[in-house]
Amino acid sequence: MAAYNVERADAEARVARLARMVPALDRAAEAAAADRQSRLLKPPGSLGRLEELGIRLAAIAGRCPPPVPASPAVLVAAGDHGVVAQGVTPWPQAVTGAMVSAMTAGQAAVNAIAGVIGAEVRLLDVGVATAPAPHPMVRQGNVRRGTGDLAVVAAMTREQAAAAVLEGAAAAGELLEAGADLLVTGDMGIGNTTPAACLIAALTGRPAEAVTGRGTGIDDVTFQLKVKVVERALERHAPDAADPLGVLASVGGLEHGALAGLALAGAAWRVPVLLDGVNAAAAALVAAAIEPRVAGFLIAGHRSVEPGASAAIEHLGLVPLLDLQMRLGEGTGALLAVPIVRAAAAVLGGMATFAEAGLEG
Amino acid sequence: MAAYNVERADAEARVARLARMVPALDRAAEAAAADRQSRLLKPPGSLGRLEELGIRLAAIAGRCPPPVPASPAVLVAAGDHGVVAQGVTPWPQAVTGAMVSAMTAGQAAVNAIAGVIGAEVRLLDVGVATAPAPHPMVRQGNVRRGTGDLAVVAAMTREQAAAAVLEGAAAAGELLEAGADLLVTGDMGIGNTTPAACLIAALTGRPAEAVTGRGTGIDDVTFQLKVKVVERALERHAPDAADPLGVLASVGGLEHGALAGLALAGAAWRVPVLLDGVNAAAAALVAAAIEPRVAGFLIAGHRSVEPGASAAIEHLGLVPLLDLQMRLGEGTGALLAVPIVRAAAAVLGGMATFAEAGLEG
Repeated sequence: MAAYNVERADAEARVARLARMVPALDRAAEAAAADRQSRLLKPPGSLGRLEELGIRLAAIAGRCPPPVPASPAVLVAAGDHGVVAQGVTPWPQAVTGAMVSAMTAGQAAVNAIAGVIGAEVRLLDVGVATAPAPHPMVRQGNVRRGTGDLAVVAAMTREQAAAAVLEGAAAAGELLEAGADLLVTGDMGIGNTTPAACLIAALTGRPAEAVTGRGTGIDDVTFQLKVKVVERALERHAPDAADPLGVLASVGGLEHGALAGLALAGAAWRVPVLLDGVNAAAAALVAAAIEPRVAGFLIAGHRSVEPGASAAIEHLGLVPLLDLQMRLGEGTGALLAVPIVRAAAAVLGGMATFAEAGLEG
Repeated sequence: MAAYNVERADAEARVARLARMVPALDRAAEAAAADRQSRLLKPPGSLGRLEELGIRLAAIAGRCPPPVPASPAVLVAAGDHGVVAQGVTPWPQAVTGAMVSAMTAGQAAVNAIAGVIGAEVRLLDVGVATAPAPHPMVRQGNVRRGTGDLAVVAAMTREQAAAAVLEGAAAAGELLEAGADLLVTGDMGIGNTTPAACLIAALTGRPAEAVTGRGTGIDDVTFQLKVKVVERALERHAPDAADPLGVLASVGGLEHGALAGLALAGAAWRVPVLLDGVNAAAAALVAAAIEPRVAGFLIAGHRSVEPGASAAIEHLGLVPLLDLQMRLGEGTGALLAVPIVRAAAAVLGGMATFAEAGLEG
C-alpha cells in the first residue's frame, strides 16, 4: 500500500504541477490587439465575433498580432465505458476500437474534415477496451481497458484519473513539440456521452435531465433510461465539484481525463484549445476545475446538439463559433471552426489600419 | 433612338439567354448522395447541416460524390450610389475607390480572410464613380460612374441594368474558365445598403422598415432618414417584382446587377454560388426573379447583421451556415463558409460507408 500511495501522490502531484504551469492571459497583448482592432480598415464592429476572437488570441499568445495557426492538430482521445452494460446505447462496445482502426485507415469523418482544414489527426488510446493495432497515428497511453460501470462502481481509481490527464497532456505535448499551434479536441468512445453528462451535472450543478442528451440518436425509452443512470450515478457517488479528480474518477471517462490534460497542456504552452462537442466540454469543465486559468485558453468550436455541451460551455463563459446541428464527435465540429480562428488572427496581422492605407480622417 | 432600342433589346436578350442556360438541379445525383450519406460511417444525422449541404452540392454538380472545391474565387463587385446625396451614410463616396485600391494592395479584410481560406480575390469595377487605377486584380466593366440618386430619379436605365448583369456574368465566366469551382460574392460600394434594402423590399414585398439596416453602423437619426429614403423610393418608382430588370434599374445598384449576373453564370456552369451579406442577398433576389432555377445553386454563407439579408435569404428558402455577427461585406462572411462547403463535399467522397469499413450489421 505504501507504493500505491506514493504512485497516487506522484500522479496527482504531476497534475498539480501541470496546472501551475498555466499562465494568466496576457492583458498587455490583449489591450494592444483591441487598440489595433479599432483602427483597422473597416467600420468598427463590422467583423463581429472575429474581433473579440482576435483579441483573445493575442491574449493567449502573449503577442499582437497573434500568430495565424498554420499547424492545427486534432487529438482523438479514445476510451471505453463500463456503463454500456446499463443499455445506454445501442452501439456495441467493439465499435470504439473499430472506429480507431477506421481513423487510422483515413475512413472516418474526422479524416475527411481534417483533410480539407489542413489539420493533423492523432489518436490516443487512453482507455479502449481492446488494444488497437500499433499504428503511427495512434499513441499508446492506455490507463485501463475501459472504465468500470459508473452505475455500480467508480469509473476508475483516483490515480487512474490523474494518469489519464497526464497521458492527454503528454500526447498534447508531443504535438506541441512537433509544431502544433492550435489544439483541437477529438473523442471516440461508445457510451461516452453518459459519463460526459455525469461530469457536466456534477461540475455545473445542473440536474441530470437538463444535461443528458441522445448521443448517437437513441430512442425515447433508451433516453429515459440514460437520464436515470446519470441521476443514480450522481446519487451513488455524490461527486464533489471542489475535487475534480474525484469527480472524474467516480463518474468520468478516461478520454475526458485525457482531453482535460490536453487543455491544461495547450494553455501551459499558450496555444489555443478548440473544443468540439459534449465530451470536450465535459473535459474542459474538469480542466477548469483543476485550474480556472485554463478557461481563457479555450475556444468553443461549435454548438453540439447535446444539451450538456451548451450547459458546460456556458458555465465556462464561452460562446460557440458554429452551430451546424452536429453531434458526431471525433473533433469534427471543432475542426470546422479552425478557419475562423485563423481568420481572426489574420485580420489583426494582415489588414492595414486606416492610417496605414492613407485613409486617416 | 432606333440604335438605342436595338442596344437595349440586345442586352436584355442576352440576359434572357443567360437565364435559359441555368439548368435544373440534378435529382439523380441528389438521390445518390442522399443514399450514400445514409450509409456513411457515422450515426445517421450526426453531421447535421453538412449532410443536407453535401446532398445539395451533388445536385448542383450533377455527380455524386460532388467535387471538393479546390479553387474558390471571390468577386468583389464595386459601385457607387447617387443616393449618398440624401445623407444615408456618413462615409464619403471616395471611400469606394479607396477601398478598391486597398484591396489591390492586399490591405483589406477580404484579402486577409481569402488568404487563410485559399481563395482568389478579383475585383470588378462595374460602377465606381472615379475610375480605379488599372491593376491585374481589377476587371474593367464600368457601366456608369455611379448610379443616379434613386430618391429622385431612376438609379440607372434598363439597358444599364442589363449591362451590369452581363458584366458580372462575364467576370464570373472569366473566373470559371480559369478553373474557379466555387464562386463567392463580394461587394464594395459606399451607400449600397440603401439600394439593397429597396431591392429586398420590392422583391419580397416586405416593408422598408423591416429590411433596412444600419449598414456600416449609422446612428438613429441617419437610420430613420434611411428608412424614409427607402420608403419614398419605393413609392416614387413603384417597382414591379415581376420585372426584375425594371426593379434593378429603378432602385438598385450596379454591383447588385453584377452579382446577379455572377449567380446566373455560376448556376449555368453548375458551380455553387456562396452568398455573403445583404448586398449579395439583394442580388440573389434579382437573379432568382430573372430565373427561379438559380436559387438551387445558391448557398447562404452567413447571417449578416443586416435585417434585409435575413429577409432575402428566407425568401429564397436558404438558411445561412454561419452567424458571426458580421456586417462588413467584401465577401468576408461568405469566405469563412468555404471550408464548410468543402467539408460537406469531402465527407461524401472521403468517408467510408459502414460496409466499406467492414462494419456492416
